[in-house]
Order: sequence, then C-alpha cells, then structure tokens
Amino acid sequence: MLRKLFQNVKEKSPLIHGITNYVTTRDCANVLLACGGAPIMAEAVEEVEEVTQICDGLYINLGTPNASKLEAMKKAGVRANALGHPVIFDPVGVGVSEFRKNAVRQLMKEVKCSVIRGNISEVKTLAFNQSNFRGVDANFQDQISEENLEEIVEFAKQFAKEVDAVVVITGRIDVVTDGEDTYCVYNGDSYLGKITGSGCQLSAVIGAYIAANPKDVLEATVAALCVVGVAGEIARERMKGLDGIGSFGVYLMDAISNMTAEELEMRARYKKV
Amino acid sequence: MLRKLFQNVKEKSPLIHGITNYVTTRDCANVLLACGGAPIMAEAVEEVEEVTQICDGLYINLGTPNASKLEAMKKAGVRANALGHPVIFDPVGVGVSEFRKNAVRQLMKEVKCSVIRGNISEVKTLAFNQSNFRGVDANFQDQISEENLEEIVEFAKQFAKEVDAVVVITGRIDVVTDGEDTYCVYNGDSYLGKITGSGCQLSAVIGAYIAANPKDVLEATVAALCVVGVAGEIARERMKGLDGIGSFGVYLMDAISNMTAEELEMRARYKKV
Amino acid sequence: MLRKLFQNVKEKSPLIHGITNYVTTRDCANVLLACGGAPIMAEAVEEVEEVTQICDGLYINLGTPNASKLEAMKKAGVRANALGHPVIFDPVGVGVSEFRKNAVRQLMKEVKCSVIRGNISEVKTLAFNQSNFRGVDANFQDQISEENLEEIVEFAKQFAKEVDAVVVITGRIDVVTDGEDTYCVYNGDSYLGKITGSGCQLSAVIGAYIAANPKDVLEATVAALCVVGVAGEIARERMKGLDGIGSFGVYLMDAISNMTAEELEMRARYKKV
Repeated sequence: MLRKLFQNVKEKSPLIHGITNYVTTRDCANVLLACGGAPIMAEAVEEVEEVTQICDGLYINLGTPNASKLEAMKKAGVRANALGHPVIFDPVGVGVSEFRKNAVRQLMKEVKCSVIRGNISEVKTLAFNQSNFRGVDANFQDQISEENLEEIVEFAKQFAKEVDAVVVITGRIDVVTDGEDTYCVYNGDSYLGKITGSGCQLSAVIGAYIAANPKDVLEATVAALCVVGVAGEIARERMKGLDGIGSFGVYLMDAISNMTAEELEMRARYKKV
Repeated sequence: MLRKLFQNVKEKSPLIHGITNYVTTRDCANVLLACGGAPIMAEAVEEVEEVTQICDGLYINLGTPNASKLEAMKKAGVRANALGHPVIFDPVGVGVSEFRKNAVRQLMKEVKCSVIRGNISEVKTLAFNQSNFRGVDANFQDQISEENLEEIVEFAKQFAKEVDAVVVITGRIDVVTDGEDTYCVYNGDSYLGKITGSGCQLSAVIGAYIAANPKDVLEATVAALCVVGVAGEIARERMKGLDGIGSFGVYLMDAISNMTAEELEMRARYKKV
Repeated sequence: MLRKLFQNVKEKSPLIHGITNYVTTRDCANVLLACGGAPIMAEAVEEVEEVTQICDGLYINLGTPNASKLEAMKKAGVRANALGHPVIFDPVGVGVSEFRKNAVRQLMKEVKCSVIRGNISEVKTLAFNQSNFRGVDANFQDQISEENLEEIVEFAKQFAKEVDAVVVITGRIDVVTDGEDTYCVYNGDSYLGKITGSGCQLSAVIGAYIAANPKDVLEATVAALCVVGVAGEIARERMKGLDGIGSFGVYLMDAISNMTAEELEMRARYKKV
C-alpha cells in the first residue's frame, strides 16, 4: 500500500499552501520539498484565497496564532473546501489559552478538515474543550501505550466520526482513524520529541501525502506517519560521537529527502486494528 | 574582477537592513554573516527609516507579505534611495496573487531598485504583470537553457532599461544585465532548488556585494551569483552516504563562510555576452 | 556550584514562554529543549497572560519588534511579575531606533526584569539612552577586555543597582552582577559571533536556568553563560575540513544537548571579582 502512495507524492509534487507558526516555518517548507512536495507560505488575508486556489492542499497550524492569521486560516480553509482541496489541521498547543480554544471552535465550525493531527492532550482539548495542558507535549498520564491504547482508539474513533475527518493522535504509538478503520503506527524515535517542530513537520508531510492521494486520505496519512517515523529512526541510528539534537534535525531532513519506496516499505511498522 | 569585489565585502563588512519573509529570515541573516556582511532585520513601519539610515544597503523580499510589511518596505526603500544606499529587491512569488502584484506595482513606482532578482516567472510577471505561475519556481517551459538564452537575454535587457536597474534572472544559467552589458553565470547545482530559500539567500548576498561595491553594481551582482553558485557546487561535492537536503543546507552555509578569493576566481564560470 | 544549578534544569524541565524575534525563534525553541527546558512561543496580546501563567519563566527579546508584540511583552511581563516568575530581557539592537528606545523605556517602567542581557552597546543604550550603535554587535571601542574590565564592571554594578536586576554584559569576557556580587565568565569562542542569534540563544538558556533556580538568579545566570560558552568551545574544537558557520551552528546545538554536569564543571572558567 505504501509504495503507490509514496510514488504519487514524488510524481505529482503537490503544492501545499501553509499557514503555520513562526517557529517552524522554515522546517515545514524544507520538509515539504524533502518529501516530494512543494511549499508556498502565505498568511495575509488579502491573498490567501488566491494562493490556496493555485495549490493542491492546505496546511494550517495553530502555533503562534494572531487574529489576522486566524482569519486567514478561515478564509483559506473555506476556499480549499469549495475547491475540494484536502485540509490538514495541526492544533498546536490548543489548550494553552481561551484565545486558541475559541479560535478553533470557530475554525472547525466553518472549515471542514480532512485530517486533524495532534498529541493526545491537544486532541482531547479539541474534543472536550478542557485540558490539563502543559506546553505542546502530551501529559505523561495521557501518553499512548499498549495499556491505554484501546481506550484511546475508541476515543479517536468517536471524535473522527463527530468531525467527519481522519483523526491522528501521535505519541509512542500513533493512532490514525476515520471513525471506521483504524491503524496504529509504531515507527518513530524518542529524539523526535527533543527537537522543536517535529510534529509540525509531520503535519506538513501529511499535507503533501493527502494532496497527492486525495481518494485515500486515511492510508495516505498512515504513509506520511511511516515516512517521518522511519526517517526519525534512520536519523537516530546515524548519530554518533558528539552528535546531539542539532545533528539529529539535519539527519531527519536528510532521511526524508533520501527515502525510497523500498526503504519505506521495508521499515514501516503499522497494523490495522 | 572578482577578487576586488570579494575583498571589499570582507573588508567593509556592509550592514544590510533586511525586510524579508518568515521562512528564510534566519538563513538570510546567517548568509549575510557568512559572506562577510552583517544583518539587521527590522520591519516595523515605526523604525525602518531609522534602521536603514545606519545601514549600508537594503534588502527587500516579497515572501509572506502583509500590509504593514509592504508599507515598511516602501518607507525603507524611499529612505534608502534618498541616502543613495543600494536596494536589492526579490519579488518572491509575485505572480501568486493580485495582492502581491499590486504591492509590487506600488513599490516599484516609489522605490528605485538597484538590483531585481527573480526566476523567469517572477521577472516576467513583473514585466508583463501576467503569469502562469506555480509556486516560487520557474515554469518548466520557461526555464533558461542554451536554446532560449538569447531570447531571455533580450527580454532581461529590455526590462533592465525600462526599470533602470540591474536585472537578474536565475535558473540553470543566470542572466545579469543592466540593459547595456550582460553576463551569464554558469555556476550552481540542482540541489539549490531542493532547499527552501536558496534564492532568498542569494538575494541577501547580492545585497552585501552591491553595498560594498556601490560603483560596480553589475559586476558585484555577478560576483555574488558566483559565490553562491560555487558554494552550491562545493556543498554538493561534499555530500556522501546518508547526506540529503538537510546536510546540503549546512554545507552551503559552510562553503559561503569559508570561501576565499582564490577559490572563487578559480571556480567562477561566467562570461560577458 | 554549577552541578546543582545544572541538575535543577534537567530535573524540573522549566517551561519558558518566549516572545522573541523572527530571526531566531526556531533556534531559541531548540536551545531551550537542548538545555533541558521546554519552549512555548506565543505573542498575541489576547493570550500571552494565560500562556505565561502555565509557564515557569518569561523570555522577552526586542529583535524585530512591532507595536503588537511590544504590547504582548508588557502584558506577559506584568503577569509574570505578579506570579513571581523570573523574567529575562534581551534588548536586541535597542540603539537602532527611537521606537525601540521608547519601547524599552515603557517596558522597564512596567515590568521588573530578573536578568537583562546584552552586549556593551545595548546595555549602555539602556543605561544612558544614547548610543553610537552599529547593528547588534558591540562597537569595537566598547568591547570588553582586561584593559577596560574594571570600568565595565563598575558600570554594570551601578546599572544593576539602579534597575534591581542581574545585569549581564557579554563579550570576550562576560560580566554578570546583581550590583553587589560580580562574576566574570571566560568561556566562549569567536565563532559564536559569526552566527546569527547566539546571543538570543544564550538569553533563552538563561531563562531556563533562572526558572529552575529562582532563588539563585545570579549564580544560575553564570551557569547558563558557562553552558553556552563551553558548548561554543566544544563546537569550535569539533570543526574540521570544510566545516564553517553552518556546521558550527549544528555543533553548538549538539554540544548544549549533550552537556553533562561533569563536563560543565570541568570546563567552566569563571571567577568572582
């Protein structure tokens, strides 16, 4: 299943319109190029509709929000919906403020997302609009493990049905579901949590994958998770001597840009549950 | 010719005021340091005139525009003109929206640019205010090659005369002209197109070169193109094993920071046409 | 002294709210993770008070200012003060415009900073509101050396008393004082001045250190300076062959993320004066 999804990205080179945070804009642009897509970042309300129109998909990210950028996300999202372009939404740190919670409530009312990706805290906040949130990482008690996996899958499926989207909850195990079918992805490395924006990068890659595979959004999302997870493993294996998180970040980008369909298929670890 | 232009940058260490996009701000700042200049990024309308005043040149970049930043570019540009500071303009993605096209029309009416650098799509959009634009890369049918070189040189010369600036069209071959004299630069590597912002970095380096060589804007621009092109070749040659676009970006910055006048003169490939 | 301060950061993993410039946002976020803390970047006036509330410390940085961000800094600062959270302030390029000078005057009237870090030009501008400033680097005549050290220590102590904060003046030698006790830190490498934002990164690390050691702000600041200074030395020693400023930046992040208490204690060079 992965080979075809992978090749579609490389062949179609989908252009993704990104409205993202100021911390990881550059990394998101580079990772879109690395995985086979192409980025265009634009956030002025005056131009986002036009920009989205020439793209193949829309990536919106809640980090470092402001009123004008939120308005731009809404406008771009509505237009993307009208055009039938897939929309990936990353609710970064949604629990940290009423401002973000209100913004998301508004956004999700007007924009239909194809995929929503967050950690368990963020997705819970989306779902319950309540949170004991700390930063952009999952609370320890909430981290996905074999023990609470069934419970989290159930929650994800319910939320996916409610919002009619593919829901992705990332953690040590990633859960991906459209409310009917569910996949667990086991790739990844703890170092992905040691650099800023690996989640943002993942969401960007999902954007490229669903834009190149618009009829297989669930499977394309699984493929994107495998790509970044496998790349994280390759990057970690490559570390030696004095290498730390700086080198890991560089190696991660390297691994995504060099990945082949064969490597991806060989190393991907996921199962339908 | 290159040695003197290169040494002037290293000796004068020109301070460049940058108003640029959010994707490549860091890379542009670092590349200014790497090539021998110094950056100061400032985009608030309240301060840009004062900031430009203490600098040696101005670098404006159309990526991720917004109304306030565009106003700041105009103010800074008018002041830079009054002070006789060289201005380099990079019309990133000018064709993606009416917002950018209008902004540029306005900007070019009020600000006299010393150098305008874009790919063929961007420069054509500037010239004709029409475009079949896709992202920030040249359309394939428009890419510069030996076949259409003469035609593109002619177009660049006409546009250069019209706007009374040095016009740079970058691609597999780079064309640089002031409307009278024209150079072609053959340095570079395909990997420069695989990372985000290599064009923005090039424009920043042009800024440092023309600020340090204000009486030789055409030749200084050629030198800057050779610096980044040669650095791209060195970075590519250095790649091995698991290296991908992450490492390439690091090696590119390394090569620019380590370049010597000898190396530049030995490897530069350009000719007057 | 350093071991305990270091371990507190690793154990408490302080969450730092950052309102910083667009050039170094990513580097500041990564360095907070690298040193043992965690970042959350947020600058909308609508949310900064809430965000600060869930954090352990506040980091404000004057680079690329705008009216809205300055208002956000003030709001966040007042709230941090009310909560007793330490505040680190980095007055990047304060001398370049009246806009920044006025902003700082206003900010320092309303917000009590725990630590203020700048180069000698920036701190002098803060103190005297006058400057012969050029970019964000110290003027040559102002650079700290053994010759003018006594004079600069005296100035720093006076200013520290006046503002009731720890004042840090960084240069070839770093001066840290609370007005009573003073330390000089001798770690560091000239390459730290060759990359953009090493000062911003240092201020971010100070933020993590004072948030994890709120009762030992002076000593925690010294520790943070040693961490970044030692990391700069390690990064420089690691450079070889074609390595330049790109690799140095990566190695610096590596060294901060890999540092151990033993290494820090062994290599730190500071003395109380």
